[in-house]
Amino acid sequence: MTGARPDTGVAGPVRRRTAGGGYAKGRARRREITAAATELYGEVGYRSASLREVAARVGLSHTALLHHFRTKEALLLAVLEQRDEEDRAAADAAGDPVAALGSLVRVVEANVRRPTIVELFCILSAEATAPDHPAHVWFRDRYRTVLAFVGDALRGAQAAGVLRPGVDPADAARRVVALMDGLQVQFLYDRAGTDMVGALRAELQALVTVPLTE
Amino acid sequence: MTGARPDTGVAGPVRRRTAGGGYAKGRARRREITAAATELYGEVGYRSASLREVAARVGLSHTALLHHFRTKEALLLAVLEQRDEEDRAAADAAGDPVAALGSLVRVVEANVRRPTIVELFCILSAEATAPDHPAHVWFRDRYRTVLAFVGDALRGAQAAGVLRPGVDPADAARRVVALMDGLQVQFLYDRAGTDMVGALRAELQALVTVPLTE
Repeated sequence: MTGARPDTGVAGPVRRRTAGGGYAKGRARRREITAAATELYGEVGYRSASLREVAARVGLSHTALLHHFRTKEALLLAVLEQRDEEDRAAADAAGDPVAALGSLVRVVEANVRRPTIVELFCILSAEATAPDHPAHVWFRDRYRTVLAFVGDALRGAQAAGVLRPGVDPADAARRVVALMDGLQVQFLYDRAGTDMVGALRAELQALVTVPLTE
Repeated sequence: MTGARPDTGVAGPVRRRTAGGGYAKGRARRREITAAATELYGEVGYRSASLREVAARVGLSHTALLHHFRTKEALLLAVLEQRDEEDRAAADAAGDPVAALGSLVRVVEANVRRPTIVELFCILSAEATAPDHPAHVWFRDRYRTVLAFVGDALRGAQAAGVLRPGVDPADAARRVVALMDGLQVQFLYDRAGTDMVGALRAELQALVTVPLTE
């Protein structure tokens, strides 16, 4: 997948493919650019962010930046793709439904340490509710995927006889995902007062009859 | 308060204060402008919205609009103030803690019928997490107020002996408010599939041992 989507330029370790390291340098540069874009989008959103400002933050000319990302949309999708790779790695629970729920806690633990990413997702997911936003389809599909992941984990727990009686997996999945999103907003306004990890852990633990494994 | 803050220009019914109706006309015009701004902010956020675009939507010149709202910030605060007035009216529960919780369901029922307002709050609350955003303090204070409202209702339920054992009022308030915010995002991506009212009602009902009154 990395080879097929060189434009995202952010997944996996840097590998030197040429004697001069040109490919590796290009990838490293693209990572710098997506990191700067992540920061800027998290501050002002995607619509207000210009490629010129991103270029300025990494010390490139506008033209040089266009060599790596031809359009504003291409850069946005690279930023989103990067975050998604990270989350997929964290949420890999190898078929154990309770461990799959626990992996959500790990994602939120990581988020506490990366408020820039939390800002980015908070503002982009809100902006992109507009159907004409270039990330609209990406976010709409992402919500489907995340709701299916949590719903499947809860159905797996049900099949294993460890889901608390009376819990509807699909309804509970919507509540869990909503809780995670809503806590992020509170966290950004009041970092010290918002225990995102504790709140999610309590919510998940209330859904199953066995100790949550993280 | 209306008299002390004429700039917000949106609270309460129109009253004719002069024989020529100039004051009433001015208030009606300001309501038109805040309605157009509400729509535009909900579409593209505050940062990307220009006063020129708002003016164009109500058929005014930029200069004529500046007569009603001198700055972009003044218009933003008028829009926020209007929504707040509506919510305060809906959430007035006259001292009954379970009715106070039930009033949250009424607010969400109203939100299902006004997706433009949901879009507005979703995108503005995300944008305004940036400390330099002109609505940052407004939203930070609003979260404090809303969390205190829900927390007080849950503490009231506790004092009345109708809070479910083991529920911590402050923690549960954070979860309820997070759920409401997070469901709004899901609703904007999938209106038919997201039952905001049902999910909130179930969450609140699980917190008290008596039937929720709405």
